[in-house]
Amino acid sequence: MQIGIVGLGLIGGSLGLDLRALGHRVYGIARRPDTCVAAVGLGAVDSATSDLASLAPVDLVMVCTPIAAIAPTVEALAPHLSPETVVTDVGSVKGAVVTAAAAHWPWFVGGHPMAGKAEAGLAAAEANLFVNRAYVVTPLAETPPAAISRVQDLAQSLQAKVLTCSPSDHDRAVAWISHLPVMVSSSLIQACLQESDGTVLALAKALASSGFASTSRVGGGNPELGMMMARYNREALLESLRNYQDQLTQLTQLIDGEQWSTLEALLTRSQQARPEFL
Amino acid sequence: MQIGIVGLGLIGGSLGLDLRALGHRVYGIARRPDTCVAAVGLGAVDSATSDLASLAPVDLVMVCTPIAAIAPTVEALAPHLSPETVVTDVGSVKGAVVTAAAAHWPWFVGGHPMAGKAEAGLAAAEANLFVNRAYVVTPLAETPPAAISRVQDLAQSLQAKVLTCSPSDHDRAVAWISHLPVMVSSSLIQACLQESDGTVLALAKALASSGFASTSRVGGGNPELGMMMARYNREALLESLRNYQDQLTQLTQLIDGEQWSTLEALLTRSQQARPEFL
Repeated sequence: MQIGIVGLGLIGGSLGLDLRALGHRVYGIARRPDTCVAAVGLGAVDSATSDLASLAPVDLVMVCTPIAAIAPTVEALAPHLSPETVVTDVGSVKGAVVTAAAAHWPWFVGGHPMAGKAEAGLAAAEANLFVNRAYVVTPLAETPPAAISRVQDLAQSLQAKVLTCSPSDHDRAVAWISHLPVMVSSSLIQACLQESDGTVLALAKALASSGFASTSRVGGGNPELGMMMARYNREALLESLRNYQDQLTQLTQLIDGEQWSTLEALLTRSQQARPEFL
Repeated sequence: MQIGIVGLGLIGGSLGLDLRALGHRVYGIARRPDTCVAAVGLGAVDSATSDLASLAPVDLVMVCTPIAAIAPTVEALAPHLSPETVVTDVGSVKGAVVTAAAAHWPWFVGGHPMAGKAEAGLAAAEANLFVNRAYVVTPLAETPPAAISRVQDLAQSLQAKVLTCSPSDHDRAVAWISHLPVMVSSSLIQACLQESDGTVLALAKALASSGFASTSRVGGGNPELGMMMARYNREALLESLRNYQDQLTQLTQLIDGEQWSTLEALLTRSQQARPEFL
């Protein structure tokens, strides 16, 4: 196939490496000329330019921009593509994005390859990043079946685990397991900083070890990404946060009321349930 | 020195391995005869029995039992020891424990070596477990200085980082960085289980990856240990939980009110503060 990739960062670059290895011809789009040169140099694309019109010959376009740019990019692409070109994206929220993008291009199919790294940018791109990772495909009821299967087949060819669901089910699921943890974890760091006794705060900093490190990890991550998760998945995240606060209140009441056997039973349920998620 | 270790689990066994390597003679105490045999076999003790009277010759006793057994063990030891024998413990909460133990034995000095492993029990014991780990010594105002320095010197000889503070400062610090994370993390697992749509819950379980794994790790740990932390450090933990809930409420209000730049600023503070704890 002829495949276009718009946005040559970690995900776009990694997709390019894999797709070229699979024998596709990959057309890159990046705003900055030096990114275009670097992407060709890395072997992530066959050619690259900032001109969307260069994607006229492609069968499929993968939009790998930040979330806020996805729908505007699809709108800007539309005049240049032939009618049955499939357009997909890699954004980590789907509801708002898919509806807006599909309004500009009926053969748009939302996608979310769930592979990430601590590093961002083209320099962090690597081959086989998606092997054995979840790749969620999120069509609308009206999305043409041929467009859906082209994206599913592509994800499959990357050796990802392909799941298909509605944009709204995707967003509710990732609110629980990806966006809620960021807010829970960030609030842990914020709470510790509230300690007003300098001796105790210094001691807490000196004693923090692996338990604190794990629980605070995602809360100490990229602030812009965290904000974007909340902004584009606001409703599902608020629902998860309300549920979370109820659970925390119940647990606090057990401690306040010294209901130790009930608390131990609750902690036992947590211990038993966690492996179901991993 | 002649050193007694009461309770031959992960911590007691690991201490024994190091203390024998340092040339001390180590007397073990365990309830079960097969634990005594295994401890001698592993080289964690020179001899072992269930009889506390065997500790009459020792200069120092390390009580390595579960928290609830520490003060009763000190009380049971008292009739067998010579007056200036130092008794210390390794419990993860100090306030209630130290006051009760010191009432039975004035030369009691609380201690908390902050080394742990996922595995428990004598079979998990290992040499050098305490190297470069924090070892908190928590004397009372009335604790004899000679007793304090004997415990500090011992911790130092294990190559641990020795910190000395009051039992109450210790408990407030560990509430923030050890006990609060367990409750925050357990509540995350509990909240996810509240999802009433079976499709979304199954999807959440399928999509959970490293972010969920990190944030839920300590909440999926030993339920009895989690309950004991809350039981013996109830007041400090409740104070931390109240602070945490305030922070989470503030963050939720920013999302609800779509105050995106304020949210990003808050997440930036979390990102900047986390390294101060690690």
